Amino acid sequence: MKVQIITVGDEILIGQVVDTNSAWMGQQLNLQGIQVDKIVTVSDTHDAITKGVDQGFAEADIILMTGGLGPTKDDITKKALADYFGVDMYFDESTYNRIQRLFQKLGKEPLHAHKEQCYMPTNANILMNKMGTAPGMWFEKEGKVLVSMPGIPYEMKYLMSEEVLPRLKKQFPGTPIAHRTILTTGEGESKLAVRINDFVEALPHNIKMAYLPNIAQVRLRMSGTGDDEKVLNNLLDQKVEELKPLISEFIFGYENTKLEEAVGQLLKEKGKTLCTAESCTGGYIAHKITSISGASSYFMGSIVAYDNAVKMNQLQVQSSTLEQHGAVSEETVIEMVKGALNLLKTDLAVSISGIAGPTGGTPQKPVGTIWIAVGDKNNIKTYKLNLWKDRMKNIEYSTTVALNMIRKFLLEL
Amino acid sequence: MKVQIITVGDEILIGQVVDTNSAWMGQQLNLQGIQVDKIVTVSDTHDAITKGVDQGFAEADIILMTGGLGPTKDDITKKALADYFGVDMYFDESTYNRIQRLFQKLGKEPLHAHKEQCYMPTNANILMNKMGTAPGMWFEKEGKVLVSMPGIPYEMKYLMSEEVLPRLKKQFPGTPIAHRTILTTGEGESKLAVRINDFVEALPHNIKMAYLPNIAQVRLRMSGTGDDEKVLNNLLDQKVEELKPLISEFIFGYENTKLEEAVGQLLKEKGKTLCTAESCTGGYIAHKITSISGASSYFMGSIVAYDNAVKMNQLQVQSSTLEQHGAVSEETVIEMVKGALNLLKTDLAVSISGIAGPTGGTPQKPVGTIWIAVGDKNNIKTYKLNLWKDRMKNIEYSTTVALNMIRKFLLEL
Repeated sequence: MKVQIITVGDEILIGQVVDTNSAWMGQQLNLQGIQVDKIVTVSDTHDAITKGVDQGFAEADIILMTGGLGPTKDDITKKALADYFGVDMYFDESTYNRIQRLFQKLGKEPLHAHKEQCYMPTNANILMNKMGTAPGMWFEKEGKVLVSMPGIPYEMKYLMSEEVLPRLKKQFPGTPIAHRTILTTGEGESKLAVRINDFVEALPHNIKMAYLPNIAQVRLRMSGTGDDEKVLNNLLDQKVEELKPLISEFIFGYENTKLEEAVGQLLKEKGKTLCTAESCTGGYIAHKITSISGASSYFMGSIVAYDNAVKMNQLQVQSSTLEQHGAVSEETVIEMVKGALNLLKTDLAVSISGIAGPTGGTPQKPVGTIWIAVGDKNNIKTYKLNLWKDRMKNIEYSTTVALNMIRKFLLEL
Repeated sequence: MKVQIITVGDEILIGQVVDTNSAWMGQQLNLQGIQVDKIVTVSDTHDAITKGVDQGFAEADIILMTGGLGPTKDDITKKALADYFGVDMYFDESTYNRIQRLFQKLGKEPLHAHKEQCYMPTNANILMNKMGTAPGMWFEKEGKVLVSMPGIPYEMKYLMSEEVLPRLKKQFPGTPIAHRTILTTGEGESKLAVRINDFVEALPHNIKMAYLPNIAQVRLRMSGTGDDEKVLNNLLDQKVEELKPLISEFIFGYENTKLEEAVGQLLKEKGKTLCTAESCTGGYIAHKITSISGASSYFMGSIVAYDNAVKMNQLQVQSSTLEQHGAVSEETVIEMVKGALNLLKTDLAVSISGIAGPTGGTPQKPVGTIWIAVGDKNNIKTYKLNLWKDRMKNIEYSTTVALNMIRKFLLEL
């Protein structure tokens, strides 16, 4: 069974709006074992819509459309669909009554444009939209299905959850599909691939492995299909267990966990507090940590020592250290950790100093040279990065590495 | 001229990744007067890719593809394209040399998988990708163009900006189009629209105004078309001059200037230094300021006082103030500014304390209550925000407001 999503709207084609609807629909369908085969975005013209639907029916069994049902005149999906199916429109009293009640509640009167929204193709099954004025529509044609929904995300989500998914599941009971995502950091995509090559080669034919790289992180996703959902899930769980020992030192979590969340969780488990002393990242590590709700239980604060005066006055970095080794050096980040521990009275501190770029590099210390230290009162570990990308990438990359160093330090406590 | 974007990747079809690449590409093409006709996402299988390309060439003059060029074996775009064009693959020495040099810099060895990345279809023009290992590829077929780029956003953006857009502009010169973007903050879209309504109504037919709202910012973009590029540019410049006095207090810059860049520029012009004292934003204001290269000439550092102990010990906020008025209060942010000025010895300081959410709210101080103060040794200005429930939005919104308060404070010096 093939499913195609068709999104209607010039605002997506010109990039004014990012199409998050399709991603959400893809996720929800997947959870029900329905795989999306193709996503298409077309312009909101009569011609583009009918051509898109025609192509969609040639390729897929189910077409899920969003967009182009609003009360303004650039929304013409409904008329295009009626023409495509060769049917007339009728005025749907029940929809109009619902819209009238909605407006009464708000103490307002429906506009002429809302009356227009009540004209429906005669072959449409109306899907009641409790979240807005435009109903969804369910069409059938030679055993295939087309569903048209509004593009407003919460209206589409309501219709998908309450109407479309239950009907699809009933009408097209498909092969179950399931996924497991393993989150890693500390090793690149290629080297991970080498490490787990034998494992991937030996995967049964119904399980596929995908590598999803991001800045300093790689997600490994195993997707499986099988007739028996329980057997499939057991198989995937077993494969995750087999994969784990091959790359255990790089795994920081599963599914949608963020690295900063995993670090926070570990800090809570170990009952430790943390602070940061940041130069080149300018507060970005602290920002990442505090982007997690509840961080106040383990994160005390940060000294952003952008200027050397702050490194010396607040973090007690020795001027001789800065003179002899420079601000971007192992010696400096070690003193920054010590100073931060002393000042902010936390169990752990992480420090960072480097040349984020694009200026400030020297032959000895080119742009992308970044020193990181993590430690407590007993032990300090350091790491040197040699990056090459742009300023923001260097900040993001080194922040991820710093978070991972905190994670590893905590694991050894 | 018709342009189609084809995105390759199961991760998009199952909704694990939102396709932001297409939106960005749509925007950039639009700015050059090139309209995207259709966006298609296909599975990363040989069959889906070749079918997608075949359909794309039947419908469009230019196909821009992203994804499926990584070193792991689920990335098969390149092989599919070679087969589609009916050509062989060859080993591209220059690409391999570049990858080797990249790895040398990192003190690492390229892997076998990276060698695989150097095999190219014989009809491909190689587009050098300075941001990663996989090069872009430019193909031509009967006057039509297909470009294949990696799916990693910053690699795609680099290739689009540096290689693809300039080549497209040269090969497909359309009707001249030009834009002027006026950047505002401090007033919402609807109220700005009322202010400039008469101006917009009176715009000549070849100039269109678009409102592009973002978190606490609205960009106003005038787009004009005309056969004579010089006349068009003069007309747009004139319209900008007419628009300015209508909304001058909200304009912080033009085109791609960031608010934090405008603030940095003003600090340099006025010869002033800045620091931040942050609670609820957890270092995000400092991060924004230091995301601008050269910030070290005016930004000294930050105290992220997430815990009240840091507010008291480092920033000298009185315990009586915290007891009587709470950490989220006008009195506390004023003391935070004073403490930061005193500690970090800057001309100006900005402080912020609030409830970012989703937890921590009370009936008196609900989630989204945020106090900000900006000042120097003579004068401190404060502002209270009442925002919403979403943690990250609250952090971003209040950071923008804080940056704008610094800007306005500097303008009055």
